[in-house]
Amino acid sequence: MIDDKHAVLLIKCPDRPGIVAAISTFLFTHGANITDLDQHSTDDEPGAYFMRLELQTSRLDKPLDELRREFADQIAEPFAMEWQLGASHMHRRLAVLVSKHDHALMELLWEWKRGDLPADMQMVISNHPDLRAPVEAFGVPFHHVPNAKEQRASAEDQMLGLLEGKADLVVLARYMQIVSPEFIRHFPNRIINIHHSFLPAFVGADPYRQAWDRGVKIVGATAHYVTADLDAGPIIEQDVQRVSHRHAVEDLKSIGRNLERRVLARAVKWHCEDRVITHGNKTVVFA
Amino acid sequence: MIDDKHAVLLIKCPDRPGIVAAISTFLFTHGANITDLDQHSTDDEPGAYFMRLELQTSRLDKPLDELRREFADQIAEPFAMEWQLGASHMHRRLAVLVSKHDHALMELLWEWKRGDLPADMQMVISNHPDLRAPVEAFGVPFHHVPNAKEQRASAEDQMLGLLEGKADLVVLARYMQIVSPEFIRHFPNRIINIHHSFLPAFVGADPYRQAWDRGVKIVGATAHYVTADLDAGPIIEQDVQRVSHRHAVEDLKSIGRNLERRVLARAVKWHCEDRVITHGNKTVVFA
Amino acid sequence: MIDDKHAVLLIKCPDRPGIVAAISTFLFTHGANITDLDQHSTDDEPGAYFMRLELQTSRLDKPLDELRREFADQIAEPFAMEWQLGASHMHRRLAVLVSKHDHALMELLWEWKRGDLPADMQMVISNHPDLRAPVEAFGVPFHHVPNAKEQRASAEDQMLGLLEGKADLVVLARYMQIVSPEFIRHFPNRIINIHHSFLPAFVGADPYRQAWDRGVKIVGATAHYVTADLDAGPIIEQDVQRVSHRHAVEDLKSIGRNLERRVLARAVKWHCEDRVITHGNKTVVFA
Amino acid sequence: MIDDKHAVLLIKCPDRPGIVAAISTFLFTHGANITDLDQHSTDDEPGAYFMRLELQTSRLDKPLDELRREFADQIAEPFAMEWQLGASHMHRRLAVLVSKHDHALMELLWEWKRGDLPADMQMVISNHPDLRAPVEAFGVPFHHVPNAKEQRASAEDQMLGLLEGKADLVVLARYMQIVSPEFIRHFPNRIINIHHSFLPAFVGADPYRQAWDRGVKIVGATAHYVTADLDAGPIIEQDVQRVSHRHAVEDLKSIGRNLERRVLARAVKWHCEDRVITHGNKTVVFA
Repeated sequence: MIDDKHAVLLIKCPDRPGIVAAISTFLFTHGANITDLDQHSTDDEPGAYFMRLELQTSRLDKPLDELRREFADQIAEPFAMEWQLGASHMHRRLAVLVSKHDHALMELLWEWKRGDLPADMQMVISNHPDLRAPVEAFGVPFHHVPNAKEQRASAEDQMLGLLEGKADLVVLARYMQIVSPEFIRHFPNRIINIHHSFLPAFVGADPYRQAWDRGVKIVGATAHYVTADLDAGPIIEQDVQRVSHRHAVEDLKSIGRNLERRVLARAVKWHCEDRVITHGNKTVVFA
Repeated sequence: MIDDKHAVLLIKCPDRPGIVAAISTFLFTHGANITDLDQHSTDDEPGAYFMRLELQTSRLDKPLDELRREFADQIAEPFAMEWQLGASHMHRRLAVLVSKHDHALMELLWEWKRGDLPADMQMVISNHPDLRAPVEAFGVPFHHVPNAKEQRASAEDQMLGLLEGKADLVVLARYMQIVSPEFIRHFPNRIINIHHSFLPAFVGADPYRQAWDRGVKIVGATAHYVTADLDAGPIIEQDVQRVSHRHAVEDLKSIGRNLERRVLARAVKWHCEDRVITHGNKTVVFA
Repeated sequence: MIDDKHAVLLIKCPDRPGIVAAISTFLFTHGANITDLDQHSTDDEPGAYFMRLELQTSRLDKPLDELRREFADQIAEPFAMEWQLGASHMHRRLAVLVSKHDHALMELLWEWKRGDLPADMQMVISNHPDLRAPVEAFGVPFHHVPNAKEQRASAEDQMLGLLEGKADLVVLARYMQIVSPEFIRHFPNRIINIHHSFLPAFVGADPYRQAWDRGVKIVGATAHYVTADLDAGPIIEQDVQRVSHRHAVEDLKSIGRNLERRVLARAVKWHCEDRVITHGNKTVVFA
Repeated sequence: MIDDKHAVLLIKCPDRPGIVAAISTFLFTHGANITDLDQHSTDDEPGAYFMRLELQTSRLDKPLDELRREFADQIAEPFAMEWQLGASHMHRRLAVLVSKHDHALMELLWEWKRGDLPADMQMVISNHPDLRAPVEAFGVPFHHVPNAKEQRASAEDQMLGLLEGKADLVVLARYMQIVSPEFIRHFPNRIINIHHSFLPAFVGADPYRQAWDRGVKIVGATAHYVTADLDAGPIIEQDVQRVSHRHAVEDLKSIGRNLERRVLARAVKWHCEDRVITHGNKTVVFA
């Protein structure tokens, strides 16, 4: 429902009776018909409550901005909600960081170009110059920012200069450099990485070789939000494929490329459609 | 949430603004905390609305029966709802019809015995005497009702005598006899069949041989509600498995046995947990 | 094993004792080490025998051409074999026919560019001019050959002029025009089509709408060799994905696009790696 | 091909030219028609070679025993093979160790009873008395051998007394006790365990809780040979299923039960059909 007649409400708050009644009555009163609603509450005490709600905006009795102010006062404040209410055609601004492997990047560019990824592709930044031509062929700006270990700080400064105020979501599409905690702090739960293994198996370097050494019969890929704790951030999506003794390490890498682009594309799409809420080190995904 | 403190509300009605507000406000007013809510509305005009809602009954301000009466008057009637509200520990009564293949039946019996299938297993009826011992070992009554073509009518009379008032759901777990439209009329959308193919491919007899003849690379199984239109009732669940040129027809049958029992068990479980609503010849499954 | 030191032997013949012994002894005698061997024989009487064998050519005692002649005389002729023996670095020449949907075509172009598809991409032919720019960006020639119903014969003549002697395999990557039996006769078992359903379910037009109408819980795609019998040629590969009542026809199409490109890319790759043998209306795939 | 007219030859040896020629010529000479052949060689130098071969024994020119002696002298010895050649109707003798969870055990018993598991079910041993009745209902002897930590040694002595000379394969179908290195030494690569996670993720206790804590989107199960190194033996088979934030730890356990029984049943079946060869800490599975 990506058009100018819908909005998405995303909520996280302490669980208690009456949340659905309060929200749905508020929306009904203001002419906002609910077209989709998904919710989740945790079992612990006190529980946490999560909701994603799609609503039609065509018959609202006031502009969305004004509705937001009233929702804040009348509903969000009393229920202590973290929330957002966005028109579904107001796209997230996306920046992709990449090194030399193009498969995950190309998948995002094609999905975006085809209209399957509701986002504004702002720029691609790479520590290598190699992918300039294919990126610019999509009409997307390409920035080459070298980022060797010894120049990390200045490289990240340069990237932050490019990104801040321009990107709502940063996607690491096989960006083979460490990202510093300082950098991450600018984009809390707004950096998505694709890890080329079925986390938490095979953290660290060269996971396909690790997988091959262990003789697993299934390999996977994991998309997760980046936190200061390497490879340990909240998992958004995973997928797997069967392998056998016939597959050499290179075969696993080739199979993995297909997994990585699929998994990353799904995770980025869900984020851009306001389907993901983080909670501690986990995610609620209303897919 | 199968305990004596929850109930499930299942609803189908014409779509219009205010349904969620009306229901959730009604429940909140009566002390019924919502623990799970799923909904769906169709895109056509006029649309249909479907909802499944789990609620806590421990702090209700009145008995469930009374709540039902008020809900009928105040909510269901004005919104023209088809609905049901059942305590989740009030189990569906189950009867299984089977011929000689035991795999799908045994899966149901074991799931039920382990507590993974919230139902009361009332009886097993078979047109063959072979499976009496393993069924009775579970403490479940076994009835042998021969059902050759020429005695169909009297056999079905005898089965109806056993079933009526005793079974809320009839499961055909590889029951290799035609069931007459008259019989079906007694259990509208309450007979589940397992078809040994990925419907609508390979309707009719010997689907594994048909699949082998066509050289498909994937075989499947389908659980569906039985209607007068053979193999064409609303699909509840399907699953598949890859096969190759190495598999003979017998291998497909063996693979299929595992598919059939898995697919049927899931469909029966979802029905018993009030997760399935039929709409025309399709289902909404809140799984 | 796509290098200049390997060759692939592909064989189909009546089954009888001694085939493996004859072939492996012949190869051993001539210095050809076997690095991979897969075989299959059918259960019927008389049975058919199929074999795929990879061998190292670096220590051959004579050129591959000469070996072929001796193999023909000494082995293939006495065993009545259909066979081929090709150096694995001698790539198949590929031509892709496409209409407006670019997803399956782009997948092939990217796989090819990345080196994951061992083929020579000769040309893309389309009945629409739209995809010229992205195709030419890959350095691949693009030919626009309009092909409306009334100009079928001349359009096919023009395409045959472009293809003959230039293409070993023709791939229909969502080519939305009928291909005539005359055209097919030029490329027996050398035209691969991607059908956007899980054949044999939903033959004919608009399969995603058919799938949606039937309420299936899984959709699929099928790659098959094109024969004069529409949608009924030998199946090479299939894959599926779960769907639910939440998916509209448009969603099925979007999910289907990902299935189609994956399935077609696998089928084309297997064909180009000499992994597919047709037998009647079925395939043996040594994947 | 489980009948009295087939045998399976399983081989592992250093890779070198001429192995296939030697074996297939030997078999052809003695009237043994090859009905299935699968092989694998590793890429390292010197490589290892693996082969599984099914042959018809009906037209052998001598008894299988005699053939074995000649094969040992003429083929196995010169090629330094580890090998076995067994008539496919000579079943492996199976013993199952179990604690209280019955799901994996029941799957094996049903598969065996249905004729889908080619093995002789010799006995079930449990450290709890609970499962005696359902096991004995299958006509299988049940032994209760208490095995608390402090009585480990004597318990294992008692089990060895029951097993030795009676069991070719020991299956741990959710046996919740540590098995000592001494015990394992009696059954090298002949103990199969089902681990309730997607190894190597979540080794150690309570893997479903670990998986839930980490917020993974897919859970799995792993069947592996037991070595002295806990949870680290050669993996035979794995399978997975998608989960979401909706699943509590108990749900993961329930989903896991279905995974465990499926994965263990496949691994045991492949072992009994002589489809598994271990190599270092990995397996070659000719499935």
